[in-house]
Amino acid sequence: MKNHLLTTLFFLATIGFTSYAQEALFRAQNIISPEIHEDNSVTFRLHAPNATAVQVTGDFLPSVKMETPMGLMDGPGKAELKKGENGVWEFKTPVLDSGLYNYSFTIDGFSSIDPGNPFLIRDVASVTNIFIVGGGHADLFMTNDIPHGTVARRWYDSPGLGMDRRITIYTPPGYEISTEKYPVLYLLHGAGGDEEAWLALGRTAQIMDNLIAQGKAKPMIVVMPNGNVIQDGAPGEGSKNFYKPQFMIPKTMDGTYEGTFEDIIKFVESNYRVKADKASRAIAGLSMGGFHTLHISRYYPNTFDYMGLFSAAIMPREDATGKVYSNFDETLKAQMDNGYKLYWIAIGNRDFLYKANQEYLEKLKGMGMPHDYVESEGGHTWKNWRVYLSQFAPLLF
Amino acid sequence: MKNHLLTTLFFLATIGFTSYAQEALFRAQNIISPEIHEDNSVTFRLHAPNATAVQVTGDFLPSVKMETPMGLMDGPGKAELKKGENGVWEFKTPVLDSGLYNYSFTIDGFSSIDPGNPFLIRDVASVTNIFIVGGGHADLFMTNDIPHGTVARRWYDSPGLGMDRRITIYTPPGYEISTEKYPVLYLLHGAGGDEEAWLALGRTAQIMDNLIAQGKAKPMIVVMPNGNVIQDGAPGEGSKNFYKPQFMIPKTMDGTYEGTFEDIIKFVESNYRVKADKASRAIAGLSMGGFHTLHISRYYPNTFDYMGLFSAAIMPREDATGKVYSNFDETLKAQMDNGYKLYWIAIGNRDFLYKANQEYLEKLKGMGMPHDYVESEGGHTWKNWRVYLSQFAPLLF
Repeated sequence: MKNHLLTTLFFLATIGFTSYAQEALFRAQNIISPEIHEDNSVTFRLHAPNATAVQVTGDFLPSVKMETPMGLMDGPGKAELKKGENGVWEFKTPVLDSGLYNYSFTIDGFSSIDPGNPFLIRDVASVTNIFIVGGGHADLFMTNDIPHGTVARRWYDSPGLGMDRRITIYTPPGYEISTEKYPVLYLLHGAGGDEEAWLALGRTAQIMDNLIAQGKAKPMIVVMPNGNVIQDGAPGEGSKNFYKPQFMIPKTMDGTYEGTFEDIIKFVESNYRVKADKASRAIAGLSMGGFHTLHISRYYPNTFDYMGLFSAAIMPREDATGKVYSNFDETLKAQMDNGYKLYWIAIGNRDFLYKANQEYLEKLKGMGMPHDYVESEGGHTWKNWRVYLSQFAPLLF
Repeated sequence: MKNHLLTTLFFLATIGFTSYAQEALFRAQNIISPEIHEDNSVTFRLHAPNATAVQVTGDFLPSVKMETPMGLMDGPGKAELKKGENGVWEFKTPVLDSGLYNYSFTIDGFSSIDPGNPFLIRDVASVTNIFIVGGGHADLFMTNDIPHGTVARRWYDSPGLGMDRRITIYTPPGYEISTEKYPVLYLLHGAGGDEEAWLALGRTAQIMDNLIAQGKAKPMIVVMPNGNVIQDGAPGEGSKNFYKPQFMIPKTMDGTYEGTFEDIIKFVESNYRVKADKASRAIAGLSMGGFHTLHISRYYPNTFDYMGLFSAAIMPREDATGKVYSNFDETLKAQMDNGYKLYWIAIGNRDFLYKANQEYLEKLKGMGMPHDYVESEGGHTWKNWRVYLSQFAPLLF
């Protein structure tokens, strides 16, 4: 009796919950996709009895060359699913390396998410499914049964930009019950990103929790601001509410962000229990955030002891105008002369910014500016940036 | 020259960013969907040149009767999109009331999200698009240019459940810089939900920010725990990492959660600047969370001055066993005798739990237990629960 009533209640609730739940219940029942097997091969499944062709596109498949206006470039690979019993299409990968992977389906030419997998990430305006294959370095991207830090979405006042702005802040496990002061890593996103990017795409909270639990990184606060100065928050989270996110956002690389970065430092240092000295400040960023890191650390020359340039969008100097970008050589030299503990540059050997980074490395060598350089496989991808964070954070403080 | 280089950089970055960005760029370029017009009609668009039929299913369309094993029930309406130039399908709604709406597309029989709209919500294992039509009560669900509270995802120790568990906590604007003590609303999700549900589906942070800014609700802390005692966090956020969420989760209504709820109260009252007295504690929940509210407020009889039962899943008493559910009548009477300020019950006139709630109201009347009752249109939906929260919060403290 008890079970019958419970079942009825649950069934009715399922129907009523949003009315969509029911659709999901009948449509996708018993479909597990992706299924990660014990040997780290992965099976994708899709119930599409009327489809004539289904492909999976993902970064775990051998990459293919894509025609672009800039020439041939690497793109994610594609594989065909095969139609089986009951209209369920399937594809099984070979054994995969440990990693966090993205994919989408193409059903009769139409690109779709996997209805069997509710775990999605948004990158600019594009939403794709993700999954994690553990048993290797991607264990760092998993939530494990260890002490966890807190992730807060707060709003800070930026007098320089004349608005309240949303910011994401990771405080390490124990922060709330400790009286200790902590060092701070400022972690900057790339073009098209926002204050959600490093958390969602970068798995920052998981990486930091894991590194700290393993004793590989010191407990630190990680501050993830929004580098798009015309936004007060991420698309869907700021006062513009829902709109289609764009990759090209005005004023992202005109010096405004760098020139007002002190608003963020002041907010953090007056609102968190931090060590407010150069030795306890690090700044790093990917792509455009690497460009911002380069300029912020130089523009505030005696502020940061640790710099991380991940696949940095190093722009030709002559294109950078305005106060922040002026006197480049002199201020870079001043940064060198003031001293620091780490100037860490990482890039993939197939990154489209590889050449620009090599030129910058030559420049640093030429002026005798100490730096560390890590060259990885691959291109301009989150796959690399997650690894760079997990390599950089242990070097700090 | 500057613009050319910038454009090149951005283009290259777009290609490289995830490789998906490029697909999105070419596929969905210039497609705006949904487009909310000035008169609050809405146009949906989908680029699908090879499709033969495209429908939109949404809760803004006249509902249709669906056959279910429990009889005919209301389901979301469907409308046909028409194929236009360049393979773009379109449908324009009539003028819509202010509200937050869900929808999905069906393309040749296959259910899909709208690739033009990256704003999605997950309800159990089902992902749908959302949009907001403002100009009315849904302005409460928008992020407006007003002071904002902080939303933190923290982990608390539950000795009663023997694990660290994830919890979502809203602190009102100014909390961090104030020395004031705040009252607390404990806000509980329904079956299939978790510590993300009230934020994502319920728009709690936006509702509270707006009500507080308008002076309609007192600044308060809102605590959103996870009511599934076998989980340490939401699907994708806890230590089980990514798996297919299920609606029926064991041990959600067996008394374990209610019996260990003191762990949550203790955590909040020792980690936040709160008024730790009965007059400053409220508890409310939807569906299963209404059931939990009923039992928690009775089991800890002198703890809460404000109770909110939103479409509560009021179970027949004889089905509830175990310590928490025993002595129902006596403990309910004790709760009445101890006194409280508000016992607020709300339900839609087409909710499948309507009858159970009417019976409970009769019971309360019979025993002379003071309560307030609000009957709304509609069924067992987030549309109602968002409104109930916006009606209940102003009555508190």
